[in-house]
Amino acid sequence: MEFSQFGDRFTQKSGILQLMDDLGDALKSAEPVNMLGGGNPASIEAVNDAFLSGYERLGASALENMGNYSNPQGDARFIDALVAFFNRHYGWGITRKNIALTNGSQNAFFYLFNLFAGEYQDGARKNILLPLAPEYIGYSDVQVGGAHFSAVKPRIEEVTHQGEGGFFKYRVDFSALENHPDLLAGRIGAICCSRPTNPTGNVLTDEEMAHLRRIAEAYDVPLIVDNAYGMPFPNIIFSEATLRWDAQTILCLSLSKIGLPGVRCGIVLADEKVISAISALNAIINLAPTRFGAAIATPLLEDDRLLELSEQSIRPFYQRKADLAVRLLKEAFGDTPLRIHKPEGAIFLWLWFPDLPVNTMTLYQRLKANNTVIIPGEYFFPGIDTDDYAHAHQCIRMSIAQPDEVLTSGIAAIAEAVREAYAEGAGAA
Amino acid sequence: MEFSQFGDRFTQKSGILQLMDDLGDALKSAEPVNMLGGGNPASIEAVNDAFLSGYERLGASALENMGNYSNPQGDARFIDALVAFFNRHYGWGITRKNIALTNGSQNAFFYLFNLFAGEYQDGARKNILLPLAPEYIGYSDVQVGGAHFSAVKPRIEEVTHQGEGGFFKYRVDFSALENHPDLLAGRIGAICCSRPTNPTGNVLTDEEMAHLRRIAEAYDVPLIVDNAYGMPFPNIIFSEATLRWDAQTILCLSLSKIGLPGVRCGIVLADEKVISAISALNAIINLAPTRFGAAIATPLLEDDRLLELSEQSIRPFYQRKADLAVRLLKEAFGDTPLRIHKPEGAIFLWLWFPDLPVNTMTLYQRLKANNTVIIPGEYFFPGIDTDDYAHAHQCIRMSIAQPDEVLTSGIAAIAEAVREAYAEGAGAA
Repeated sequence: MEFSQFGDRFTQKSGILQLMDDLGDALKSAEPVNMLGGGNPASIEAVNDAFLSGYERLGASALENMGNYSNPQGDARFIDALVAFFNRHYGWGITRKNIALTNGSQNAFFYLFNLFAGEYQDGARKNILLPLAPEYIGYSDVQVGGAHFSAVKPRIEEVTHQGEGGFFKYRVDFSALENHPDLLAGRIGAICCSRPTNPTGNVLTDEEMAHLRRIAEAYDVPLIVDNAYGMPFPNIIFSEATLRWDAQTILCLSLSKIGLPGVRCGIVLADEKVISAISALNAIINLAPTRFGAAIATPLLEDDRLLELSEQSIRPFYQRKADLAVRLLKEAFGDTPLRIHKPEGAIFLWLWFPDLPVNTMTLYQRLKANNTVIIPGEYFFPGIDTDDYAHAHQCIRMSIAQPDEVLTSGIAAIAEAVREAYAEGAGAA
Repeated sequence: MEFSQFGDRFTQKSGILQLMDDLGDALKSAEPVNMLGGGNPASIEAVNDAFLSGYERLGASALENMGNYSNPQGDARFIDALVAFFNRHYGWGITRKNIALTNGSQNAFFYLFNLFAGEYQDGARKNILLPLAPEYIGYSDVQVGGAHFSAVKPRIEEVTHQGEGGFFKYRVDFSALENHPDLLAGRIGAICCSRPTNPTGNVLTDEEMAHLRRIAEAYDVPLIVDNAYGMPFPNIIFSEATLRWDAQTILCLSLSKIGLPGVRCGIVLADEKVISAISALNAIINLAPTRFGAAIATPLLEDDRLLELSEQSIRPFYQRKADLAVRLLKEAFGDTPLRIHKPEGAIFLWLWFPDLPVNTMTLYQRLKANNTVIIPGEYFFPGIDTDDYAHAHQCIRMSIAQPDEVLTSGIAAIAEAVREAYAEGAGAA
């Protein structure tokens, strides 16, 4: 029983798959694990209450939802609620032809990165341009014809955070971006960024977004914005930022990080041509998207409680977690070298250990052996050759969604492992 | 904004997409439509009651399900329940490494038909072998590298049904199958059949299945069995049939036709290597499958109520519908030529109008103009060149899942349109 090339490509144990297996093994440990590796959102009481009461109110009408396919575009009532929501709050004048649902955001990116990269009709091969590495680990393997990414390394700026030093922020290197040979040669099919960025918690500024939008327009390619952690829900953004959309932009949203990852509901807001393509892909690959998440979320969207929950519960929850994690890190590291990416959003902190004598893959292995799980930085650079890019091997992503005691013991373990690594380096020198 | 070749291929309006658009337009009619076109299961009271009480009992534990990703293989509790179920009833000795969940059965076939067809490592190109056309319309477009099917036309046998004439049954033409040039040349990656067959309601006999299984083993390719309408649930089978599985077989099941199409839950039971590949594809394309359907179905599987519902409610419901539709057809057609495929299962009847002077695509257009919707036969022959195969253009699929009055008026409309078509032919001759 042999697999096709498609089968071989998608089942080879590289990148995300290897890591997921490895994380799975770590979780089988008999001792408790400080799980700072995953992307599961936290359980937040006020949010849970809202979902549970929505579940109970749904009652018998859940039958209609369970018992019938939606059309391939997705649950019509939820799409209508989304259209009304965006027109009410942003005045974009969209119609139901501008929105399609998918089985989660990952599913949307599988569609989009294959729609806009790989082989084109005229024999050209085009890439997805990632203007600011590091970027989301889940992008790496989704393309059916192999990886097609072009990426630009960040400018690293030292910044303060809440009046304190020890922080940095990535900025788009627009000079490198606008002179990227793939862009100049017409080998870019779309530009994509996550905002806030998974893994760094960076939030691209409004100026950076406007600049990217102008480049997208100049090359007539879409600007795909991965809003999984962004506005208007779950709105896990601690800095100033504005949400914009127009027909050049493909906005991807999700119900996962408001607390509903199990329902697998992604939302794509785009030009009619793109929405019609997503619907076609839904039809062929899935017949129709799943409907239960839509049923739970629709009333919360209609009366703006989802906004309220985002503002009053979800964002403050993660803001507090970020503040706590920063304080714990500063205490635990003391004089040990550490730079924290300025926490501007999402549910992670991105830590940089300058000139770390071992790479963070080794650090990951050592931590895992001691029941603390983080993700080594090298996985977050799709489109960048990390072999000669030391910075990629000096960073880690850690989740802040865990209970305070897990953050405390996990961060203590990280600090100890990093301190030992630096000591080894000093010993060897 | 241009699409890649992948985008062009999956969005061209051919086959199923064109048809779905067309059906969508038909449903926008101001007058009531006799919708005999779709595949939505019927709403059955006893089944609805079970789902609704399952929904209510789930209560607060729904939060765990909504609020957490499963692993890429799918909801662990449901997989464990499935393992116990199959071992309890069939003694197959499977483990949880033999089962993965997908976002519906269509999603599973997208994976499987790309895992086992298209380009292989050594430059070979392999096809999915469909031993008995007609086959399911949804198979046609799922392959990322374009259609890769080899198919064998059926032997057509006149048979009786409940002691009456006017029926036929398709049989596998094993002589054509075993001498198919693609099989002999090693250009087959897997063999696939739906049982009961969508669209015909044919149920391959145990002998035919055993024979297919031997061929699969001889060529070391999997035998994929699409059990969406089959055993053990929803068990919409009116003839004698046995369910078998072993490591050569990939069994695909679904919760859709027990009445839960909106939850998008497909089940794949296969060798560990295949399950591991499905899990990998889930991870990359969807992160993880959706969980709500699993939560509803788990208790129904654990106490065998799903079997009970299938035996006592679902199968008898469709058996009665099939009997009614046959009676209505015989009455409405009278002397007008009509052969009905022996109704052995599923939720459709497959009608053959021998030597019909117009093709059934024309018939479909005429019926649609009069607010009755069926599916013309030509869509159900993936892998067969229907240009010189008249039989493919003389058949239609009609759903029997609709209310009795819709069946009555829909069948009357079909009979009238067919009668007119024969009269035109006679006039022209």
